[in-house]
Amino acid sequence: MIHITRRELFCAAHMLRNENWDDKKNLEVFGKCSNPNWHGHNFELFITVKGEVNPLTGFVINLKELSNLIEKKVIQKIDHKNINLDVDFMAGKMASTEVLAIAIWEQLEAGVLELGGILHCVKLQETENNFVEYYG
Amino acid sequence: MIHITRRELFCAAHMLRNENWDDKKNLEVFGKCSNPNWHGHNFELFITVKGEVNPLTGFVINLKELSNLIEKKVIQKIDHKNINLDVDFMAGKMASTEVLAIAIWEQLEAGVLELGGILHCVKLQETENNFVEYYG
Amino acid sequence: MIHITRRELFCAAHMLRNENWDDKKNLEVFGKCSNPNWHGHNFELFITVKGEVNPLTGFVINLKELSNLIEKKVIQKIDHKNINLDVDFMAGKMASTEVLAIAIWEQLEAGVLELGGILHCVKLQETENNFVEYYG
Amino acid sequence: MIHITRRELFCAAHMLRNENWDDKKNLEVFGKCSNPNWHGHNFELFITVKGEVNPLTGFVINLKELSNLIEKKVIQKIDHKNINLDVDFMAGKMASTEVLAIAIWEQLEAGVLELGGILHCVKLQETENNFVEYYG
Amino acid sequence: MIHITRRELFCAAHMLRNENWDDKKNLEVFGKCSNPNWHGHNFELFITVKGEVNPLTGFVINLKELSNLIEKKVIQKIDHKNINLDVDFMAGKMASTEVLAIAIWEQLEAGVLELGGILHCVKLQETENNFVEYYG
Amino acid sequence: MIHITRRELFCAAHMLRNENWDDKKNLEVFGKCSNPNWHGHNFELFITVKGEVNPLTGFVINLKELSNLIEKKVIQKIDHKNINLDVDFMAGKMASTEVLAIAIWEQLEAGVLELGGILHCVKLQETENNFVEYYG
Repeated sequence: MIHITRRELFCAAHMLRNENWDDKKNLEVFGKCSNPNWHGHNFELFITVKGEVNPLTGFVINLKELSNLIEKKVIQKIDHKNINLDVDFMAGKMASTEVLAIAIWEQLEAGVLELGGILHCVKLQETENNFVEYYG
Repeated sequence: MIHITRRELFCAAHMLRNENWDDKKNLEVFGKCSNPNWHGHNFELFITVKGEVNPLTGFVINLKELSNLIEKKVIQKIDHKNINLDVDFMAGKMASTEVLAIAIWEQLEAGVLELGGILHCVKLQETENNFVEYYG
Repeated sequence: MIHITRRELFCAAHMLRNENWDDKKNLEVFGKCSNPNWHGHNFELFITVKGEVNPLTGFVINLKELSNLIEKKVIQKIDHKNINLDVDFMAGKMASTEVLAIAIWEQLEAGVLELGGILHCVKLQETENNFVEYYG
Repeated sequence: MIHITRRELFCAAHMLRNENWDDKKNLEVFGKCSNPNWHGHNFELFITVKGEVNPLTGFVINLKELSNLIEKKVIQKIDHKNINLDVDFMAGKMASTEVLAIAIWEQLEAGVLELGGILHCVKLQETENNFVEYYG
Repeated sequence: MIHITRRELFCAAHMLRNENWDDKKNLEVFGKCSNPNWHGHNFELFITVKGEVNPLTGFVINLKELSNLIEKKVIQKIDHKNINLDVDFMAGKMASTEVLAIAIWEQLEAGVLELGGILHCVKLQETENNFVEYYG
Repeated sequence: MIHITRRELFCAAHMLRNENWDDKKNLEVFGKCSNPNWHGHNFELFITVKGEVNPLTGFVINLKELSNLIEKKVIQKIDHKNINLDVDFMAGKMASTEVLAIAIWEQLEAGVLELGGILHCVKLQETENNFVEYYG
């Protein structure tokens, strides 16, 4: 068993806001992340897949195929978009890094299995000072 | 003469769009950066000041004071904001990295002089793959 | 269950030295790290907390509160200090990266629980070539 | 129990190729990595060792000794070499990052034990966008 | 006048060798870089262009077009290739970082002019410890 | 003419303090950097040399020789040392990054000339947020 990780990047706008709360409460909980005119980040996404090494290729999974999967299921939907407004798999959800990482897991889990690997971790880095990791 | 550089970070949303053009033309020129629902970045800002070394302190400029100046004149106005909508010193301007770097120069030039240094360069990094440098 | 990590930085001086050994033995074991006039590092500290996502906020833990906790219990006590001489929670201990990481765990474990999370890992990076991870 | 990691670097050439396949099949599976004239990378190697902290030293393992072991068993054999042609512990193996990480584990496991630690992970980063991790 | 920089990456094999010298002399001058079975690197290429800001776009140069130019004139010819054997614009030249940076300048200078900018600098980073800069 | 840069690292302790001032004044000017028990940093040193490319080698300067020079004249004297107490070329000087960069220039200028290059820049990075550059 070995783990292999592919990094992909996307840039997106978002806002942290609970629509059941007033502005004062949102500001109190989310601080400057609740700015109603949005802000944004360069997100770094690390997708880790585990599996046995295929003796014919030396690969756990073909990284080109993994990259294509991430591109199709995640990057094309979120890169240079607004996470709250534009991304189908985030509709009706809080646009926090935690919730986004879990949603990306759901976007990728089945496809990784079809490629012959097992999704092990979604790591999502929002700034150089914070990131989340989700293991399913 | 020696150069000293202070790095500061901010996260912001923006959109590249010429209001005199229709959507098709904007898309053609600005690509996915013209998304009307915004996108955003983690910007890295490097402010370089030049001057003589003060023999009493060993400093060209007091970096704490320089950091306070950048905080007051730039970061508080732009961090977790929308560059097109929220930032007074960008009102009516294109929200490109180039134009933003020049506007940041104008925000800082006089204040750096008051602190006893000469503003030498504003470097603004938008993603790990592109940045601009402005020397006045 | 999801993991979230906050990075904080501090700069400090230290020395590796067993007071029961003579200089020759200290030099033999600790090499240049035993310099009696001290040396120092820019330390990078990564605090990982695990927990369930709160549906009201999308958060495992409020990162601002986590950052304040780390600031109060660790950074204010160690940043721009001498680890061997100035830091109360390191008194009488070896100033190695391993021992420091364990001591930081003890500083933070209870406070993280009060904030609603579970401390998962303290990662402490001393140089670009070495770091330690402690899981309790 | 605590984990400590040492990073080492090496630069090497390699090629991905299954000698039982023709050029067309190799190109199809390995893409540009199958170029018969070789290509190369700056590899970053992270060796993680676990163990108890020795109260006399504050160390899990002496990093200088760990670095010497990695130098002797891995770096001297692979740095500025051709992984397919020059490296004894890769003879007859696919030169993929996965297979190389496993081979490096085998090179180091016994030596780490002699130094008083337990090898926990070999992480091998090939480019900024991909890396593998092997836990034995 | 403002400077804008685009980063592109490529991975390649090479060897440092003067064909008029014997193996001993090559080893003496080039050390392990003269290994006849090649070695390789992940190169980082930074292309800096200067010019006036176009008031219609806020751009010095369209970065998408600059990236396409670098892709066509440099990356497609050198990525996952052997610099000594495969790259037309390096034929008959020493495969040092210095000579490669100058050759890349020659590949790009005219094309940058056609895009409306002036090529200012080619920076080529071979490892995290060394890079060259060429200003024409 | 081309520029080539070599990076070297060192870890050192220091303190910012004007001995003609009392503690209160030192604290006011230097803040936490004036801690009398020292603090320290991982310094990154970038030495840039300019010159013509030697057609026999493709080199401006032999980087191995440049690295040896920096090792002998700077790193051996300062790595894992106290800048205020241990470093001969800093005796009687303020231990600021600016003054240290100038002193490193003086340590290297003649030796670089003997190696056939011209010293162009000493860049000294103290933390990820500040660095100085000295051009002689």
